[in-house]
Amino acid sequence: MPPRYLNFRCSVPWLILLLQTLFLIRSFFGFPAAGDTYSPSNFYPEFQDVNHMVIFGFGFFLMVLRRYGFSSTGFNFLLIVLGVQCSVLVEDFLVFLRVQQNEAGLKSLAKAVVSMTAVVISTGAVLGKASPVQLIVMTLVESIFFYASRCINRTFLQVPEHLTLMHVHLFGAYFGLAVTSRFPEPPPGLDKNRSTPKSDLFSMLGTVFVWVFWPSFNSLLADSKKEAVFNTYLALAVSAVAAFMLSALTSKDGKFRMTHIHSAVLAGGVAVSYTAHSIRHPWIAMILGLLGSVITILGSHCLQRCFHPALKLQDTSGVHFTFGLPAVLGAVAAVVLCVVQKGIEKQWN
Amino acid sequence: MPPRYLNFRCSVPWLILLLQTLFLIRSFFGFPAAGDTYSPSNFYPEFQDVNHMVIFGFGFFLMVLRRYGFSSTGFNFLLIVLGVQCSVLVEDFLVFLRVQQNEAGLKSLAKAVVSMTAVVISTGAVLGKASPVQLIVMTLVESIFFYASRCINRTFLQVPEHLTLMHVHLFGAYFGLAVTSRFPEPPPGLDKNRSTPKSDLFSMLGTVFVWVFWPSFNSLLADSKKEAVFNTYLALAVSAVAAFMLSALTSKDGKFRMTHIHSAVLAGGVAVSYTAHSIRHPWIAMILGLLGSVITILGSHCLQRCFHPALKLQDTSGVHFTFGLPAVLGAVAAVVLCVVQKGIEKQWN
Amino acid sequence: MPPRYLNFRCSVPWLILLLQTLFLIRSFFGFPAAGDTYSPSNFYPEFQDVNHMVIFGFGFFLMVLRRYGFSSTGFNFLLIVLGVQCSVLVEDFLVFLRVQQNEAGLKSLAKAVVSMTAVVISTGAVLGKASPVQLIVMTLVESIFFYASRCINRTFLQVPEHLTLMHVHLFGAYFGLAVTSRFPEPPPGLDKNRSTPKSDLFSMLGTVFVWVFWPSFNSLLADSKKEAVFNTYLALAVSAVAAFMLSALTSKDGKFRMTHIHSAVLAGGVAVSYTAHSIRHPWIAMILGLLGSVITILGSHCLQRCFHPALKLQDTSGVHFTFGLPAVLGAVAAVVLCVVQKGIEKQWN
Repeated sequence: MPPRYLNFRCSVPWLILLLQTLFLIRSFFGFPAAGDTYSPSNFYPEFQDVNHMVIFGFGFFLMVLRRYGFSSTGFNFLLIVLGVQCSVLVEDFLVFLRVQQNEAGLKSLAKAVVSMTAVVISTGAVLGKASPVQLIVMTLVESIFFYASRCINRTFLQVPEHLTLMHVHLFGAYFGLAVTSRFPEPPPGLDKNRSTPKSDLFSMLGTVFVWVFWPSFNSLLADSKKEAVFNTYLALAVSAVAAFMLSALTSKDGKFRMTHIHSAVLAGGVAVSYTAHSIRHPWIAMILGLLGSVITILGSHCLQRCFHPALKLQDTSGVHFTFGLPAVLGAVAAVVLCVVQKGIEKQWN
Repeated sequence: MPPRYLNFRCSVPWLILLLQTLFLIRSFFGFPAAGDTYSPSNFYPEFQDVNHMVIFGFGFFLMVLRRYGFSSTGFNFLLIVLGVQCSVLVEDFLVFLRVQQNEAGLKSLAKAVVSMTAVVISTGAVLGKASPVQLIVMTLVESIFFYASRCINRTFLQVPEHLTLMHVHLFGAYFGLAVTSRFPEPPPGLDKNRSTPKSDLFSMLGTVFVWVFWPSFNSLLADSKKEAVFNTYLALAVSAVAAFMLSALTSKDGKFRMTHIHSAVLAGGVAVSYTAHSIRHPWIAMILGLLGSVITILGSHCLQRCFHPALKLQDTSGVHFTFGLPAVLGAVAAVVLCVVQKGIEKQWN
Repeated sequence: MPPRYLNFRCSVPWLILLLQTLFLIRSFFGFPAAGDTYSPSNFYPEFQDVNHMVIFGFGFFLMVLRRYGFSSTGFNFLLIVLGVQCSVLVEDFLVFLRVQQNEAGLKSLAKAVVSMTAVVISTGAVLGKASPVQLIVMTLVESIFFYASRCINRTFLQVPEHLTLMHVHLFGAYFGLAVTSRFPEPPPGLDKNRSTPKSDLFSMLGTVFVWVFWPSFNSLLADSKKEAVFNTYLALAVSAVAAFMLSALTSKDGKFRMTHIHSAVLAGGVAVSYTAHSIRHPWIAMILGLLGSVITILGSHCLQRCFHPALKLQDTSGVHFTFGLPAVLGAVAAVVLCVVQKGIEKQWN
């Protein structure tokens, strides 16, 4: 396809140039000054952790395909630096429209970096199908849609600010699946999308990297940070143990399968993300981590065999069962816990 | 050995399942709620550093053998997530027995992660000999023994809480050596345990990673954090310089040997761990770092030639001279410094 | 060259031994005790980030040559641990001469680690030409010269303390170029200095690592940390986007070139380093990031073709356009912004 390739050659740098110019012009008119209404608590170390995790952890997480090894890491980097600017400016625009309060400086940057996780997860679904131009457009569209969904959540559903950001996993996974269903099926016999042991290994290392930084991610914008860290760590530990256990149980020769661990190790962190700050009893977080891991490994078996072929979904990095299913579980658990707590409170009054 | 291998297949996941169920049941009854009696100072960044160091740094540190490359990193991860849960529950059990005060939340998690270092060091000694089931059992037994040793230290020897945790290096190294002496000697000519340049390199990178995070490790639970960081950094810097120097002096062609640096670079941090928070004059920390490095490199020459064959010890990662000897030096130095300080105080009164 | 090689064999360990002994003796006499006049704000997480970045990030950044792969990372480590001790002692000596106020403990360590960046950047210029002995001597001489330049800045030019440290990029790049011009040109046809795709890749990863930690570097000693982080992050994001864009525009086939991104991605952080704490409007930081990236990529084209051959400069890692030119731009911008601000203030009064 030389003409389409030529098309790419011409369009990518100009597209980036156009966007960057727009961002600069937009920032010239009324970008909020840094540190105006900054909260007293210093959350810079957690911000740095999340930044590190999004660029390096998810960068390596995306390195699943042989053909798109380090270039997917590099492209992930470009998408994040573009998307962060886009997110900051969208938020600024919403402040202009009086939909949202003005929250300047480092906090708006932190929110932008967290919401970039949605873009990275969606990229994991369309990897190897979308061209760079399509990925850049997807980043911008997804940033705007995610902010719109946050606005709806905050205004109409009265969800607290930091919980609206925890929808990233759910939003990113299903947005990515929706985008990937629009792409034509690749011709059979094409080995472009195969993974190699080495790319699997790097992807696994990236996943463990994300695992290490996950407590920072869940506690970044939460009110009760210590509880969020404690519950997230326990849920992650249980889901990692369960991932090893289920991997050895489900594989035929009793060995640990890297792909199982790769997808299930994060499930606990995702499942607990809505409720990490409010869980009082650690065993609830541990049970959530266990259930998240089980649902992911069962999901990866069922979905890849039955569901995806029927719906013609091609989910390259398996974001549906790695992030989508545990996030659904977490959302259900959040509702159940809320109902149970209100029931208990009623009984006591 | 197909029947023994079959045995492994069946037992590992069920063993993990059993343990995880026990942990869940135990946590259901009276696991302390997070953040109850939490100290005001925020030590989350240091906790994150130690967590990162134990999982990544020591994970790569263990990657010394050709046959057990990345699988030793993965297995290290499983042992840590199991051991942290076990440690938290053992501590909870001791609170129940009224041996210890209740210290809930992030602090008990931090102690559990620090005490996992002992398990990782012991794993370094038995690597390539123990089966996964044996490693999991060793993790549990060692966690319980380490807590028992901490209780004895605290109750009968009146050692402050955070110093009992600094016994991890001493305990881990000699526990690992004791375990490894129970294993039969491998048949000569087996190249299963040989290292390759690549595995050596990754092990070296892991060691430098541990080096970078060591000040966080020594200052995590100390009272005077700034002094602990300052002294540890100086001791580490001097021991790194001494490692390069001694490596070039002792090798025949004047080149730096990676194995020497690998073992001696951490010696300063280990040697200063008991006294980092209380040393007033930085030159004492620097001398300790120098002595730690010297003792490690001399030890690695003497022990591997004379001592280990006589006692039939096989120390795969060299934890005896990397962690054992500098910890002994540190303990002796702590006693000497304490005696000297009391002598000075007496003279002045 | 066997006799010169023999010379190396003998001299390196003894040189290190001599230096280490001097440092120990010096520290015995009046090294300031830790934590005496320590500022209340806790900047340990940022210090840890900078430490991590100097050892790992720049360690991998230096891995550009095929022949000096991981050994340059290891040697970088040795130079840093030597140089940090040297810097701490030089500062202590200046306190003794009453040129400077006594600032003990972690802060003097942080300054020493930051000023090591100059040494690492200079090492990047002379890599593959200097012998280890020459590099060690260069480290010591450069540490002393950098402290002298900081003294002159502080005493005669009234530059604030933390800004004198931001001269590291400028000083390091031009010191390295001055040193490299003293070395004879390598004979043509020698492939010792060629880079391989793998070494390029590691160098790129190191650069992204440095990118992630750069906000910590710029905010470590600044007064208004939040603004420094915010402006640095935006400048870095814009310069990363501009690096991708310019790379695709200037290469013949429209692909992203790793070498372009490698050199231009940090330009924003360097350009904004003098002014990050004082910029009020984020668009100024964004424009600086954009200009830094443009100047770096144009510079790398012009300098390598016209300027360097004329002056017989051989700049191995391209530190001239990676650090030198953006630092010049940043210095000019700082002067311009200062003048403009004073003009505005005058008009209003």
